[in-house]
Amino acid sequence: MRSNNNILIAQGGGPTSVINQSLVGIVFEERKNNSKIFGSRNGVNGIINNKFIDLSKLSKKDLNTIANTPGAALGSTRDKPDEKYCLEILKILKEKKIERFYYIGGNDSSDSLRIISEFTKRINYKLQCIHIPKTIDNDLVKNDHTPGFGSAAKYVAQLFSGINFDIKSLPGVYLGIVMGRHAGFLTASASLLRKKESDGPHLTFIPEHSFDMNDFLKKIKKVYNRYGRCILAISEGIQDKNKKLITQKIIKKSEYDSHGNIQLSGTGSLGDFLSEQIKSKLKLPRVRADTLGYPQRCFIGSASEIDQKEAYQIGVFAARFSNKNNDSFSAGILERKKFSKIYKIQFTVNSLGEVAGKTKTMTGNFYNKTTNNVSKDYINYALPLIGKKIITTKSII
Amino acid sequence: MRSNNNILIAQGGGPTSVINQSLVGIVFEERKNNSKIFGSRNGVNGIINNKFIDLSKLSKKDLNTIANTPGAALGSTRDKPDEKYCLEILKILKEKKIERFYYIGGNDSSDSLRIISEFTKRINYKLQCIHIPKTIDNDLVKNDHTPGFGSAAKYVAQLFSGINFDIKSLPGVYLGIVMGRHAGFLTASASLLRKKESDGPHLTFIPEHSFDMNDFLKKIKKVYNRYGRCILAISEGIQDKNKKLITQKIIKKSEYDSHGNIQLSGTGSLGDFLSEQIKSKLKLPRVRADTLGYPQRCFIGSASEIDQKEAYQIGVFAARFSNKNNDSFSAGILERKKFSKIYKIQFTVNSLGEVAGKTKTMTGNFYNKTTNNVSKDYINYALPLIGKKIITTKSII
Repeated sequence: MRSNNNILIAQGGGPTSVINQSLVGIVFEERKNNSKIFGSRNGVNGIINNKFIDLSKLSKKDLNTIANTPGAALGSTRDKPDEKYCLEILKILKEKKIERFYYIGGNDSSDSLRIISEFTKRINYKLQCIHIPKTIDNDLVKNDHTPGFGSAAKYVAQLFSGINFDIKSLPGVYLGIVMGRHAGFLTASASLLRKKESDGPHLTFIPEHSFDMNDFLKKIKKVYNRYGRCILAISEGIQDKNKKLITQKIIKKSEYDSHGNIQLSGTGSLGDFLSEQIKSKLKLPRVRADTLGYPQRCFIGSASEIDQKEAYQIGVFAARFSNKNNDSFSAGILERKKFSKIYKIQFTVNSLGEVAGKTKTMTGNFYNKTTNNVSKDYINYALPLIGKKIITTKSII
Repeated sequence: MRSNNNILIAQGGGPTSVINQSLVGIVFEERKNNSKIFGSRNGVNGIINNKFIDLSKLSKKDLNTIANTPGAALGSTRDKPDEKYCLEILKILKEKKIERFYYIGGNDSSDSLRIISEFTKRINYKLQCIHIPKTIDNDLVKNDHTPGFGSAAKYVAQLFSGINFDIKSLPGVYLGIVMGRHAGFLTASASLLRKKESDGPHLTFIPEHSFDMNDFLKKIKKVYNRYGRCILAISEGIQDKNKKLITQKIIKKSEYDSHGNIQLSGTGSLGDFLSEQIKSKLKLPRVRADTLGYPQRCFIGSASEIDQKEAYQIGVFAARFSNKNNDSFSAGILERKKFSKIYKIQFTVNSLGEVAGKTKTMTGNFYNKTTNNVSKDYINYALPLIGKKIITTKSII
């Protein structure tokens, strides 16, 4: 049995458009138990620096507004706790008599939570660690998809759909570099609003399939000869056959975070490098590269309503489950067996060890190596996640 | 008097999210006169290549869908007609018995139209040339603002508003490079959804004020010391005190179009260069640059409803005016004397010579050199143009 209802919530890793939905879902549910709710500023970093926000007293109206706001309302971090860090966390947890800790985050944050969970278990401090999934990369194992992905996918799909009409107007080669370190799910979403064969993206390159420059150029040429234009969706995480990142091959000085991740976003270098290759080797006119960057995870006003709802509900689900069970867990969305017309999901519970720090990639039937593009299966899988259609479009040329 | 109702419509330059609204406005209005409506493919280029689309017969439903679709539905061009080009145009105009030509475009397209208008006048071919303004740059003289700008401004404002929350979550320096060759109007729109002093963009750099690297770095440092983060909106067209583009100083090989414009978009080089300067000289952590690129003019689902309406109506206005007058003209939006609470515009007519090829820049009270940011006057001017508010946001840190 627990001795109190003091709970701690934090948010970690790259924020999303709906990460605050999960936060608010937990807060509303926990308030029913009169829990004292500590919000840690900037993830685990706020614990060791004793920086907390009292989430027990915010008005209902304010909480609803926060839920709709992108970014991590409590702030985020890329800190990875080591033994010393865990000891500092423990000191504060004891001081505040906290026995439950909700961490909303992706692969790395779930790994931080696993470390803390194993540490407290080892030293016999009773702490229930609860992981709430979020990542625009959609790369958490044991999950059909992750909250945050649907909204980012919607942004990417809307962007490429607009680009399709723009490049039809002034033809050329267009490269859109999409976020995704290891998994191609988000890059694949560039095709979600594609209507016909001649629509872009005509080619999609993801980290799961090794990138070969000659093959890349040959395929662009073929599409260009056919349609007079070529639109490409390219993952920032594309790698050569030796699993070396293309970005790493072209940038001299790389920046890494504490989880060992190299900085891929916030620079246009991959797009510019690929552009130069196309210009110099294929001599095609009007080659343009855009790196989609941070707006993918925070653009105001293009959150998917399905994603918002699920992010909120998984928070509520986790809070309810936590109040009936004492073990640590990772809340999840059960993998759909098939992608039927009626979209329905079910929440589930995984052990922290099953999920933490692991990466799901886009395998199986979601990508067609022959067409170098996403499959109908992927469309059926991902289309419901971006919510309802925005506008109907039409082309006459 | 005209001998017939044969009209020609074309679209030129960089497309916008609402350029097809103007097209459809003209078509609906001209249909009332039973005009035969030729749509030229890819601007003036379609005339000399005899590539036309019959716009007289498209269904009302299709036309309404086209109006909502970004990109130039007829295709666009950057061609600038010379004497030989004009002779080829003339041949086709005579063949098709066309006496009226609507050209929807910005500075360069209006200049193409002026050239054609002067040519036909000189050789005594009766052609009414009608310019319909469009440009996301908002830099046409004699116009309060231009159709296309409001939607692009809305996209930029939504993007920076989201970025503000993202960078609050994971602090650092963020540079957003915004389209705008000569005028800072679009870059300035990054501030339209800013609510308080601490919100980004904290600094805005526009082409109208010369860019000095030392001053730039000093100001970033000051903001960073104050807020622990710094968000910057930077125009792709920033120039040094000798009016030399910063981009031109860092790119070895530049690409120019037939109007003499250097390629600024579709590359991340300016953002990457400025990032490197900040990293190496200020030693600040987490410096990220995104180049907003082509989505600014075509992102699906973030068109401003005011902009859509005005783009449509200016097409209707021009068609009505043309049917009562024989002289060439440029349709326009009369400059508002003051920016009162009730937003109201009035269409007007300018001579082609007054508008063609000229560039309006952001001068006067719209920018504050001391704060290096936009003024309240600019906000009052531009806020109505992006239409109604999307969502309400809230921050707790």
